[in-house]
Amino acid sequence: MADQGITPRSEDYSRWYLDVIAAAELIDSSPVRGSMVLRPHGYAIWEAIRADLDRRFKETGHVNAYFPLFIPQSFLSREAEHVEGFAKECAVVTHHRLRAAEGGGVEPDPAARLEEPLVVRPTSETIIWHMYGRWINSHRDLPLLINQWANVVRWEMRTRPFLRTAEFLWQEGHTAHATRAEAEEEARRMLGVYRDFCVETLAIPVLPGVKSASERFAGAEDTYTIEAMMQNGWALQAGTSHFLGQNFARAFDVTFQNEQGEREYVWATSWGVSTRLVGAAIMTHSDDTGLVLPPRVAPIHVVLVPIWRGASQKAQVLDFARRVGAALSRRFSVEIDDRDNMKPGAKYFEWERKGVPLRMEIGPRDVAKNSVFCKRRTGGDKFAIEVGDLGEAFLDAVGRELDRIQAELLARATALREARTFRVEDYAEMKARISEEPGFYLVPWHDDAEAEAAIKAETRATIRCFPLAGQEEARGRRCFYSGRPATHMAVFARAY
Amino acid sequence: MADQGITPRSEDYSRWYLDVIAAAELIDSSPVRGSMVLRPHGYAIWEAIRADLDRRFKETGHVNAYFPLFIPQSFLSREAEHVEGFAKECAVVTHHRLRAAEGGGVEPDPAARLEEPLVVRPTSETIIWHMYGRWINSHRDLPLLINQWANVVRWEMRTRPFLRTAEFLWQEGHTAHATRAEAEEEARRMLGVYRDFCVETLAIPVLPGVKSASERFAGAEDTYTIEAMMQNGWALQAGTSHFLGQNFARAFDVTFQNEQGEREYVWATSWGVSTRLVGAAIMTHSDDTGLVLPPRVAPIHVVLVPIWRGASQKAQVLDFARRVGAALSRRFSVEIDDRDNMKPGAKYFEWERKGVPLRMEIGPRDVAKNSVFCKRRTGGDKFAIEVGDLGEAFLDAVGRELDRIQAELLARATALREARTFRVEDYAEMKARISEEPGFYLVPWHDDAEAEAAIKAETRATIRCFPLAGQEEARGRRCFYSGRPATHMAVFARAY
Repeated sequence: MADQGITPRSEDYSRWYLDVIAAAELIDSSPVRGSMVLRPHGYAIWEAIRADLDRRFKETGHVNAYFPLFIPQSFLSREAEHVEGFAKECAVVTHHRLRAAEGGGVEPDPAARLEEPLVVRPTSETIIWHMYGRWINSHRDLPLLINQWANVVRWEMRTRPFLRTAEFLWQEGHTAHATRAEAEEEARRMLGVYRDFCVETLAIPVLPGVKSASERFAGAEDTYTIEAMMQNGWALQAGTSHFLGQNFARAFDVTFQNEQGEREYVWATSWGVSTRLVGAAIMTHSDDTGLVLPPRVAPIHVVLVPIWRGASQKAQVLDFARRVGAALSRRFSVEIDDRDNMKPGAKYFEWERKGVPLRMEIGPRDVAKNSVFCKRRTGGDKFAIEVGDLGEAFLDAVGRELDRIQAELLARATALREARTFRVEDYAEMKARISEEPGFYLVPWHDDAEAEAAIKAETRATIRCFPLAGQEEARGRRCFYSGRPATHMAVFARAY
Repeated sequence: MADQGITPRSEDYSRWYLDVIAAAELIDSSPVRGSMVLRPHGYAIWEAIRADLDRRFKETGHVNAYFPLFIPQSFLSREAEHVEGFAKECAVVTHHRLRAAEGGGVEPDPAARLEEPLVVRPTSETIIWHMYGRWINSHRDLPLLINQWANVVRWEMRTRPFLRTAEFLWQEGHTAHATRAEAEEEARRMLGVYRDFCVETLAIPVLPGVKSASERFAGAEDTYTIEAMMQNGWALQAGTSHFLGQNFARAFDVTFQNEQGEREYVWATSWGVSTRLVGAAIMTHSDDTGLVLPPRVAPIHVVLVPIWRGASQKAQVLDFARRVGAALSRRFSVEIDDRDNMKPGAKYFEWERKGVPLRMEIGPRDVAKNSVFCKRRTGGDKFAIEVGDLGEAFLDAVGRELDRIQAELLARATALREARTFRVEDYAEMKARISEEPGFYLVPWHDDAEAEAAIKAETRATIRCFPLAGQEEARGRRCFYSGRPATHMAVFARAY
């Protein structure tokens, strides 16, 4: 693809997002409507996210497994609410063979029509709970704490890279418990894992909360969520964790014998995050120059740009750069950009657009001084780091710079969220402001699905969550919309 | 599932394989014909395989990416031979929505029929080469060295866990090169990566070779293979690497401008291994007691079984076991089996069936002696290891035992393969022996697809490969079947 400029955020935020992604070569459209190709630089961000989350899941006692891509059509109608929520825009497999078509090409073979169509999983509760019915018999089989890394498909007409695509990659945890209390605790624990991951690794200060009934997952009793704020003040749901009660256990008849010898239905949770997190990280941190990534998920931590004139300088500078690169690669992911026929400035420009957190320039003077000249992707003056004997002290110094970038990104995103969190008492005020000043509107609220729908129709804002913290503030206050006694503190926002 | 015995190999090898898998809880059938559930203990083996291979791919310069699950139907007929090989038994998506059916349930919505059906990828050459057409323009874009970890679907009527299922997990490498020589070198390099992985990690002494024309991948000019021998003397194709020539580049019109400014078609390779490798490892190493796994892919390296009588022994023994477990887990994957109400013997039996390489028994006398009493899954007398101060010396001693098990498994498998490799000069001899003595029959061969088909019809044996090593032996010899001058040394075997 031809090189292209990046539209400034202030001019067109949506266009800016697409430009950042294209310039960094993260994703490409495909000939299949709604399906995207994750290019190597984009997939590597997902790999880093996956590795970090997988470690956190295992540390909290979960194991991975893999369930079938296809789900019998009839399964989707077993859980009443679930069918409403999911049995609609699905990819449906109806044939298992192609045949040569008259006039060339191939076509589905009518003789190979499936007796029962198969649905490409939009989520795996149904097939997993069918299997749990075989594996769970006694209280000794519980809890069952399984996670799956997989692709899922939800037919989407309007897509946006990473945020909404027909096929996407995700993880889905599905756990089974002997008691309601344990399942509820699990759903909240995993929300905490997601929150910690977002804050510590993606540098996104997400807001944890509970969904209102109308935003709940189909089949859940409670849906917990973490909500991120993008730079334009819109909300992005970054992950959800559901307490499913006994709904799926009843639908798939999954019972266990408790310690008293009685049979009971099993309690369930499910929780998931997806490649959408890559989009959240891009939108939270990038700037008008291009991609900015938190070092902990950056595919390349450091790029070395050797600078020389003439063959003898080249040999000397490249030799030094390679020794520095070899040392750094003991701890970091490093790229040495030794391309000929390209000016240093053009290289800087390219690596900035690709979101590499730290750049090191290495010219003859740097070699003479035994140091590297550094620039942080997040800005600030250039500065030198002594390489010394290329030992731990040098690596520690580089590590501190990366930690500093990581902390800087979190601080900026937190400051933005605070500046864009508005406490209003009065619906008229939100309605007047939200178009010009999108953000999190924290309001006292009397829970009411009809009022929620009316507000959405008028302002395009939805309840993102009832924040876990600060609910006591609702006590004694009046709903900002109806004036009735407040039942919750709610955050309204426009959302992706 | 109820506990069940394991059929001895000598009685029914196929049944034995299924019993080993069931007893170790590796896999379960699913309500979707031909699709299996990889249970946590089975999936963990694949995770270990994946992590090891991924490291090897990255060390050889490859990057990961992700391409769509769905392929437009028309793509499959673009490459003439490919359509013959793959456009048959595929899952075909024809609708993108379900609707409520009369009388309950759901059904494909006739209003949501796709204009062009989509095929669930049986392999991704076609969609990837379509994308390469967008990304490759100049010789500077080459080589392009991309790998994908994904699920694929090939509709199979007769399935066998891990070895042949409708949906399976695999990796597929797809590379693009400026010259034939480079692409051929890549295809052979990746075969080498697979061979090294099988030998070093799975302890399977695979035989590398080239496929005959009739066993070649649809669309390839050369298919390289690694062939493993199972304990019953049957062959199992463990991985393949294809030199694709310019076939896909022509089909998808992918050209590049060379250094002289001329446009040329790109040269291609593809290579893949799948969850079939898990089956290969199981069949190669397991015994009549159950699963045996090479330590390098065992989900659990060491199981600690504390043994006590009464509360005071219990406290003492468990405390010791936990300290030993914590020390070991700095380097190994460890399980402490502290279940009450279960005798040590029953625990041993269970962990043996699950293929844990090393068991440590810890009773009061072991605590007193500051040692653990060990048993290798591969047999031999029990022996003590001093735990000392639980430092590096102890971990090194345990590491040596695991290495010894790893080496023992490779040596056994190599000895079996050597004992079962038969050099015959005469077809009548192979025909008479192969039913009673399945194995690798190494023969001088005059390449001829019709003769190959005739032999397959009479003996069910196929040419597994022309081994890379020892082809010079064919010189001056006569084909064991036709008496014509030998063109190759060929290995015939019955195969999974």
